[in-house]
Amino acid sequence: MPVNLPLVTQFNPINGLRIGSVNAGIKQTERPDIVVFELGDNACTSGIFTTNAFCAAPVQICQKHLATGTQTKYLVVNTGNANAGTGAPGYKDAMEICQAIADQKSVPVESILPFSTGVIGEPLPMEKILRALPQACTHTSEDTWYEASQGIMTTDTHPKGFSTQFEHKGKVVSISGISKGAGMIMPNMATMLGFIATDAGVSQPLLNKLCTELGNKSFNRITIDGDTSTNDSCMLMATGTVDIPAIVSESDDFYLVLKAELEKVFTYLAQAIVRDGEGATKFVSINLTGCESSEEALKVAYTVAHSPLVKTALFASDANWGRILAAVGRAGVTDMSLEAIQIHLGDVCIVENGARAESYTEEAGSKVMAQDELSININLGRGDACETVWTTDLSHEYVSINADYRS
Amino acid sequence: MPVNLPLVTQFNPINGLRIGSVNAGIKQTERPDIVVFELGDNACTSGIFTTNAFCAAPVQICQKHLATGTQTKYLVVNTGNANAGTGAPGYKDAMEICQAIADQKSVPVESILPFSTGVIGEPLPMEKILRALPQACTHTSEDTWYEASQGIMTTDTHPKGFSTQFEHKGKVVSISGISKGAGMIMPNMATMLGFIATDAGVSQPLLNKLCTELGNKSFNRITIDGDTSTNDSCMLMATGTVDIPAIVSESDDFYLVLKAELEKVFTYLAQAIVRDGEGATKFVSINLTGCESSEEALKVAYTVAHSPLVKTALFASDANWGRILAAVGRAGVTDMSLEAIQIHLGDVCIVENGARAESYTEEAGSKVMAQDELSININLGRGDACETVWTTDLSHEYVSINADYRS
Repeated sequence: MPVNLPLVTQFNPINGLRIGSVNAGIKQTERPDIVVFELGDNACTSGIFTTNAFCAAPVQICQKHLATGTQTKYLVVNTGNANAGTGAPGYKDAMEICQAIADQKSVPVESILPFSTGVIGEPLPMEKILRALPQACTHTSEDTWYEASQGIMTTDTHPKGFSTQFEHKGKVVSISGISKGAGMIMPNMATMLGFIATDAGVSQPLLNKLCTELGNKSFNRITIDGDTSTNDSCMLMATGTVDIPAIVSESDDFYLVLKAELEKVFTYLAQAIVRDGEGATKFVSINLTGCESSEEALKVAYTVAHSPLVKTALFASDANWGRILAAVGRAGVTDMSLEAIQIHLGDVCIVENGARAESYTEEAGSKVMAQDELSININLGRGDACETVWTTDLSHEYVSINADYRS
Repeated sequence: MPVNLPLVTQFNPINGLRIGSVNAGIKQTERPDIVVFELGDNACTSGIFTTNAFCAAPVQICQKHLATGTQTKYLVVNTGNANAGTGAPGYKDAMEICQAIADQKSVPVESILPFSTGVIGEPLPMEKILRALPQACTHTSEDTWYEASQGIMTTDTHPKGFSTQFEHKGKVVSISGISKGAGMIMPNMATMLGFIATDAGVSQPLLNKLCTELGNKSFNRITIDGDTSTNDSCMLMATGTVDIPAIVSESDDFYLVLKAELEKVFTYLAQAIVRDGEGATKFVSINLTGCESSEEALKVAYTVAHSPLVKTALFASDANWGRILAAVGRAGVTDMSLEAIQIHLGDVCIVENGARAESYTEEAGSKVMAQDELSININLGRGDACETVWTTDLSHEYVSINADYRS
């Protein structure tokens, strides 16, 4: 069971964006496994992608197609197969999927962006996909976000979505988004897909800026097991159908309002992935403050977040603060002074003045550790930079899921 | 059960080194929990220590005492309590232990080296330790290596030791050693202690060189969970009692012979820690070749070794080579060409020419993965540097051990 992750079934439609979902039989499931997003004429699309050196064929094609400057018309997602580690044939397969839609819809192939998630290294079941595609591209609707949230799931136990509306200058602006991912989650993206759309209009450069900045503060700040996948992609689409002039400048007050609202959606969808992390029983915020730089803060935060000893202590609700301290100590920060460091579990001080806090009691620490949502707050006492990373514990269930995934 | 780790109960005594072990009641066990090594007059001692920024009080004292150049006379080890994260009182406690031995034996306090391993952040049970120390320092013998190997255990399931002899110029030279550690094992030492002694004579500078070089290629090449402990120490002692002139130059042929023999002992004792890794069911060698530099090779090797997805696949004997490929891809090596990379499981080629090897069959891969000792061989195809790292899988047992350790 995911940690405090409500099921979202109602989404605000985004005018100018239609979605088709179909079960192509790629996975042994009754859920859809192909999802197609169809964008209207004025839409802009931006994306950020995995930094894995062996990024999958669809990621390579997305980046290539976006770089041509061609307006994106269709995004096509399949689950069940990542089309990664598949070499030249995998690239050809992904292009063939794009070409099939381009032919059916009479649009340039560069206007199609492909996405795949699932097992690495197996060839795509092309026959099944090509047979199912036309229907997914034809039976589209603005009201099928929930089906889409189900259609992009892999080992997720829960579909993940979030939708919001706000008023600006008397007009209602909508944002809807879905995400997927449960393992192989780590900075710089993971087996993670995110699709977020708004009916606001945003110029391409500013949409790129929004997608990068918000993606970095959300999807690039979550980690379950430190494994960065070959397929991660986070897409932001702006259809520009709402009756407010498109944003072309950062000084437009609509820009700041929209950015704040989008940030809520990005953050929710990123955190949802952690809440549904493989075998997760805890949702943990690791907050670093007092650091010399953002890089330093992230280095320590990720070292703590990835420590199997910290993670198993979280699973056991064991306030084993020595493991947290040891992880901070091995993070590779030079000239760190133990005397200057303060560590809190929630609001319980566990380390100060170079040792266990005098006020600390095992009872107080255990009470925090027993919560299903908690924070580890680490102040290095040497600067002003701060960063937050979200992660989970390491449970028996994680081992079971990943030891059995392909069988 | 450790992976292929025979119980060693017979050790060659090292003339000039006596060992006392005693049960001080620090741990709830019938094994000794305090071990004292007593060195003869001509002995030299060298050590390498954890790089954790918050190294424990005993590590700080060891380094300080060694730096004075005072000849080491006693090494005192306690288990059950790491005396780490204990601040100024912890330092004072460790010094008090040294002083107690110094007083009893009328030697300088700088000739005493303290070692602690166990739970972090609890004060040492000083009363128990000080009461038991005199006996440990008095009842010493050359024949108690096996008791010592038991006396330094924490979560180890097996005592770890190795002993060997060889002839040089008609004289018999002996080496004996013990190690401990089962979790928090990672490059740059871990909750790991190693004590290795020979009756050969070696000058202090050359003993330092041997300890650093051999330690780096053995104890600093093992990883179980990526967690570097605050207490790791590896000590090399040369008593100089064998009737061969002490080594004072690297060009002495005795130096090369001794180094090769010591390397066997270091490697065996380091690997023993991995074989007894918490919950280990597999012993895995990760061999990197074709790298541009040693640093690059280690970066990739450790990324693969620490990947929870690779580790759970190893546990499941699942030849999920995509996870290995994804881990290589996220290791942070720039300009890596997927086309140039070859990956073998044992001698079965799994990746070449940018994709799964054509000759690969699931059956062949699974056969290798089912072995309890196996190698993952990765050739980056871009240079001449190579490195090997040893690790284990990630099992349910690992989670159980670390979720329950303090309870």
